[in-house]
Amino acid sequence: MTGLPSASDIQRAARTLEGKARKTALLESYLLNERLGCRLLVKPEMLQVTGSFKFRGAYNRISHIPEADRVRGVVAFSSGNHAQGVALAARLFGIPAWIIMPSDAPSIKIGNTRAYGADVVMYDRQTDDREAVCEKLRQEHGATLVRPYDDPAIIAGQGTVGLEIAAQTRAMGIKADLVLVPCGGGGLVAGTALAMAAESPGTRVFSVEPEEFNDTARSLATGKRVRNEPASLSICDALMAPEPGRLTFSINKDLLAGGLSVSDEDVGTAMLTAFSDFKLVSEPGGAVALAAALCGHIDVRGRTVVAVMSGGNLDAEVFRKVLSSAGQLR
Amino acid sequence: MTGLPSASDIQRAARTLEGKARKTALLESYLLNERLGCRLLVKPEMLQVTGSFKFRGAYNRISHIPEADRVRGVVAFSSGNHAQGVALAARLFGIPAWIIMPSDAPSIKIGNTRAYGADVVMYDRQTDDREAVCEKLRQEHGATLVRPYDDPAIIAGQGTVGLEIAAQTRAMGIKADLVLVPCGGGGLVAGTALAMAAESPGTRVFSVEPEEFNDTARSLATGKRVRNEPASLSICDALMAPEPGRLTFSINKDLLAGGLSVSDEDVGTAMLTAFSDFKLVSEPGGAVALAAALCGHIDVRGRTVVAVMSGGNLDAEVFRKVLSSAGQLR
Repeated sequence: MTGLPSASDIQRAARTLEGKARKTALLESYLLNERLGCRLLVKPEMLQVTGSFKFRGAYNRISHIPEADRVRGVVAFSSGNHAQGVALAARLFGIPAWIIMPSDAPSIKIGNTRAYGADVVMYDRQTDDREAVCEKLRQEHGATLVRPYDDPAIIAGQGTVGLEIAAQTRAMGIKADLVLVPCGGGGLVAGTALAMAAESPGTRVFSVEPEEFNDTARSLATGKRVRNEPASLSICDALMAPEPGRLTFSINKDLLAGGLSVSDEDVGTAMLTAFSDFKLVSEPGGAVALAAALCGHIDVRGRTVVAVMSGGNLDAEVFRKVLSSAGQLR
Repeated sequence: MTGLPSASDIQRAARTLEGKARKTALLESYLLNERLGCRLLVKPEMLQVTGSFKFRGAYNRISHIPEADRVRGVVAFSSGNHAQGVALAARLFGIPAWIIMPSDAPSIKIGNTRAYGADVVMYDRQTDDREAVCEKLRQEHGATLVRPYDDPAIIAGQGTVGLEIAAQTRAMGIKADLVLVPCGGGGLVAGTALAMAAESPGTRVFSVEPEEFNDTARSLATGKRVRNEPASLSICDALMAPEPGRLTFSINKDLLAGGLSVSDEDVGTAMLTAFSDFKLVSEPGGAVALAAALCGHIDVRGRTVVAVMSGGNLDAEVFRKVLSSAGQLR
């Protein structure tokens, strides 16, 4: 695949993922709907294989590598969810994977990536050149780089989330007014927006980011790709991409209704709501879309809203801290 | 319905619950399967409407009340999951519900039962006579008692869990060797065993209980219903029934392969595994079947095992304590 992916690439990706990825069900809570005065459906991708949506894109991308190249393996860099997605996909294809991860990634993400059989290479976010480490591995092994988001086959794979939302709402006899999607590099929201545009025209799709990493929101507002402050920090380790992708932004600037930003405190509220109302474990980055719906970042009253929850890979200690704030937050 | 429920009562319950209860998907983890050397599927009933399987039986039971009686409402006693199931089912039928709950029930269970619109009447486990409170409400309002487990329509409703397990494993082209089911009064395991006997003969079904409340295990061993020590305590608030039900035990003694018992520590291990490997929030009582599979209470190696996780209604503080022990347990 070259150039921008199309809706039919997403259809093809869905067939490739059949029996490999899980079709996660839309979940809702009577009591939460009542409190919010809307119909809120969550798409729980923490229940996806490897605990995040990233497996969809990774598996689809690897399926597109010509077999002669594929056997030499893949290389990827990731703070953890793409890492696990690539590691398991590589294993299912029976090929080696080298994954470059920052040394401060959550230990569950590092541990699982290794457990899937990948060779994990650590680097220091402050001092090491990730690209150089990656290039060296590619040349050494003849491995193919599997980018985290700026790749048409990755975007098409993530877009199967949107395809499922469209089919599932249709089967329920309803149509989503709003679809809210967590956004790091923008692959998931771009793919979802492509699928919704084809399958559910009129549904408005929004990216949702942490306040400190709202490059997509700011880029959408100005029409040009802008970067985040290099020293920024967020509780959302999965959403710390430096700037919107080239391909993802060229899709998102045309198809998104806008970009929303949420605070770390909003994320805590959403993680607690996921716990108490949906019985789901969400990692911080996975909860930003739910946070936007819960914390007044967009008017949801009277509407049918889908919030994609993108992953649930976090260390027990982080979740414990969020639960400690239950008294203050609710 | 009178007498013991049959497999066709469960089929009928499934039709009654169509579009009301959720068909929860079977979930599995590559890494956990590898660690255990088996194929372990969990049936996540914490994702069921009201956060536990109890809605299935409650809705089915209320549907069987003749309409002239139904309009006068229902009364139930429960530590919390049956309470919420009855409260929401009553609301969907547009009838009043009075629910008698112990004052030490988890606050999320009390709060949600009220939020569904039920009138919650509190009693003290040590000093008050629950039956007397219940009888007074029945007479005062002409309400129908919805028992927590010893009722054929309740057992048939809970049995839809088994019906789904049989259909889902069949659709995957596999057959369960073992089905492990949390057991309090025994309604869920009795219904599940009835369904499996009809739909998946040869599958062995086990009840799983907390060590301190293993009345069903001991009753199965002796062939006669025995009671728990009145002063017993367990982290599993949902599984503290005093003795096996009359109807449930007459099914269970014929259909169960045996009764397993797990410790509070095993339950903590299972709650942590649900968190890290399945991204699911399990209440203590909901995790006993998974605990049995994880902690060596039955030989799972080389087998296809289904562990029913029965609910996820617990207070943040309890989950926080379980997460604090992550270091010791893993």
